Amino acid sequence: MSDLYQQLILPRSEKLVLLVLDGLGDIATEETGRATPLDRAHTPNLDRLAASSALGRMIPVRPAITPGSGPGHLGLFGYDPVDVQVGRGVIEALGLDIDLQSDDLAARANFCTLDPETDLITDRRAGRIATDINRQLTARLREHIHRIEDVSVLIQSGKSHRFVVVFRGPGLEGPILDTDPHHEGLPILPPKPARETPGSLKAARIVRSFYEQALPLLRDAAPANGFLMRGIDMKPAIPTLGERFGLKCAAIASYPMYRGLAQLCGMTTVATGETPADEFQTYLDHYDEFQYFFIHIKPTDAAGEDGDFELKRTVIEQVDAALPILLSKKPGVLAITGDHSTPCPMEGHSWHPVPVLLHSRVCGIDGATRFTERTCNTGSLGFFESKYLLPLMLANAGMLDKYGA
Amino acid sequence: MSDLYQQLILPRSEKLVLLVLDGLGDIATEETGRATPLDRAHTPNLDRLAASSALGRMIPVRPAITPGSGPGHLGLFGYDPVDVQVGRGVIEALGLDIDLQSDDLAARANFCTLDPETDLITDRRAGRIATDINRQLTARLREHIHRIEDVSVLIQSGKSHRFVVVFRGPGLEGPILDTDPHHEGLPILPPKPARETPGSLKAARIVRSFYEQALPLLRDAAPANGFLMRGIDMKPAIPTLGERFGLKCAAIASYPMYRGLAQLCGMTTVATGETPADEFQTYLDHYDEFQYFFIHIKPTDAAGEDGDFELKRTVIEQVDAALPILLSKKPGVLAITGDHSTPCPMEGHSWHPVPVLLHSRVCGIDGATRFTERTCNTGSLGFFESKYLLPLMLANAGMLDKYGA
Repeated sequence: MSDLYQQLILPRSEKLVLLVLDGLGDIATEETGRATPLDRAHTPNLDRLAASSALGRMIPVRPAITPGSGPGHLGLFGYDPVDVQVGRGVIEALGLDIDLQSDDLAARANFCTLDPETDLITDRRAGRIATDINRQLTARLREHIHRIEDVSVLIQSGKSHRFVVVFRGPGLEGPILDTDPHHEGLPILPPKPARETPGSLKAARIVRSFYEQALPLLRDAAPANGFLMRGIDMKPAIPTLGERFGLKCAAIASYPMYRGLAQLCGMTTVATGETPADEFQTYLDHYDEFQYFFIHIKPTDAAGEDGDFELKRTVIEQVDAALPILLSKKPGVLAITGDHSTPCPMEGHSWHPVPVLLHSRVCGIDGATRFTERTCNTGSLGFFESKYLLPLMLANAGMLDKYGA
Repeated sequence: MSDLYQQLILPRSEKLVLLVLDGLGDIATEETGRATPLDRAHTPNLDRLAASSALGRMIPVRPAITPGSGPGHLGLFGYDPVDVQVGRGVIEALGLDIDLQSDDLAARANFCTLDPETDLITDRRAGRIATDINRQLTARLREHIHRIEDVSVLIQSGKSHRFVVVFRGPGLEGPILDTDPHHEGLPILPPKPARETPGSLKAARIVRSFYEQALPLLRDAAPANGFLMRGIDMKPAIPTLGERFGLKCAAIASYPMYRGLAQLCGMTTVATGETPADEFQTYLDHYDEFQYFFIHIKPTDAAGEDGDFELKRTVIEQVDAALPILLSKKPGVLAITGDHSTPCPMEGHSWHPVPVLLHSRVCGIDGATRFTERTCNTGSLGFFESKYLLPLMLANAGMLDKYGA
């Protein structure tokens, strides 16, 4: 399907802006007073924009699918998240701001607890150890393991029991199957290639050797006396938005994972500050350099994950208050949405369709007076998969030619 | 997907009527007073029908895709317009009322201007020459070129710089690649087959020979001293609506292109007049002869193309005023919609979903009181691709059996 859009592309200079409020969508329950944070937020600027925009709701991946951040954003960037998959190791490495090379093999690792007698897993998350213990243990591993054969090993601690290992060297190939058996009471699985190619056999050998060197270093470190690896793979080779649609793209995001996902799609990351106002100012500063801007706001999702309705409402109001900065250079096409819903009552990502607002000279005015889940239900964009948002933005920019005579 | 419907078909005698107001969909902008022609039109008959119908919005091809008339109608007739493609030459020939045979090779041609020194293209549309100059030049070509090998050549002038060439003879096969390089400053491309088969090699040879004979005849005719060919292909072999669903179909359309598209799908064209009232009377006159009627109203699209909001509103009101004629023999299933949107503010086709009204004894009443883009946003048909309209009509006629036990 993306081929069809690619074949029809017309060059234009219109600016396209995608403003993502991470985890924006929410649900009304009896406990929330039958309202969502968007319902309750005071958003005069969004309301005014909604009144001259087209609204709808987006299904991030497929109906009923709860996406992680990777699939959520790949959809927004015009990829089918079922076709283009990014390994968990790569996502985690991007989230730790590791500058992944195209032939790096990245693994997400969890410290775990092993029974010292039997080597069976007794706790897959090592009692969720404190981050500073994690830091000490990864430092110990780093100190002793630099290189295996011609492959250098990068070890980076994350939060709690999480860390990332990147294997950097010639000829590695993924994916390697998880060493995590995903159940307790079982042993760590030996690293095996998903397909037996010379590169993946080498990669499996390197990971096995890493285990042989690392496990003895952790023998005294219970409850973190072992570790499990998941999503051991390379960066996927994704055709960039430049290659597909001729777009020169900037990513403005304060969190590394989102910059990383954007880079996977060929976007240039631009340094920015922490607040929505900072990010909007960054957009203004780089307005002339790029055609497409991805601006990412994280705290809506974090508030949803914490189940903090009032905080999510407040974050939305902060974005609204800063919106005039963004609109001082009004792009040809502006889309405001989320990568998925993170309903406060669920304290986590969900499958619920995400409200979306699309504004352009030719978007068509739906006549809503607010931007909420409910007004979006009745908008002229209908319910559609997120992968169609970028084509819709291109169409609104006059960048898609007529199909057929 | 069509296989599933085809497997479930049940014969019934219910009449099915598809009334297409070409380019019906529109958008509200600040300039239009936030209203569309459907919003503003006085349509008592449509309103009454809407009050007992199911409403929805249709995506002609795929989200964000702006269809030409061919893909727009193929969708309405129950074909996937991405699977079934009709070449531009065929569409143009149908539009000029040429009775295309199954082994004819048709090409859309544009007069162009060639630099007399270098033979490079300096204007791909020959300064959009007047239609009567076009007529003189095509007459000149027709006078000198009747036949190449065993292939007869039909040349028919269109408007401005456009004409059509049909090659009629045994064993021709398409498609032949465009001779139009789609950019100025380049030479006319030699005709080449897309795939090298005996039939397409012969076809390419015939087209090449046509060029060798025709170009010298135009040498003195600057700015129309050359011509470019596009969409050089045969009629596609499409399973007819009779073959697929056992439907005996009539096409009632005053414009040749739509009659031609209907014929491609196996419909019988029925002579009719110019006005909606004429076309509805034609439907009454042939009511007993056919089961399915495609009735095509052109002027909504023409008004949209001209950006003439008031005219589009007036055409809609004319259709509404004539509707009682159509409803005097009320079919079992009636669908009223467009093949695509042609928003007045855009003066051209667009990707915006098309409003659709579906009426039958079992359609379900949505409770809207008007038929507009906005009432259709909230209808029970939702947003769906046009290719599903015919199956929905069949279901409403009781012509689709239960699937599975």
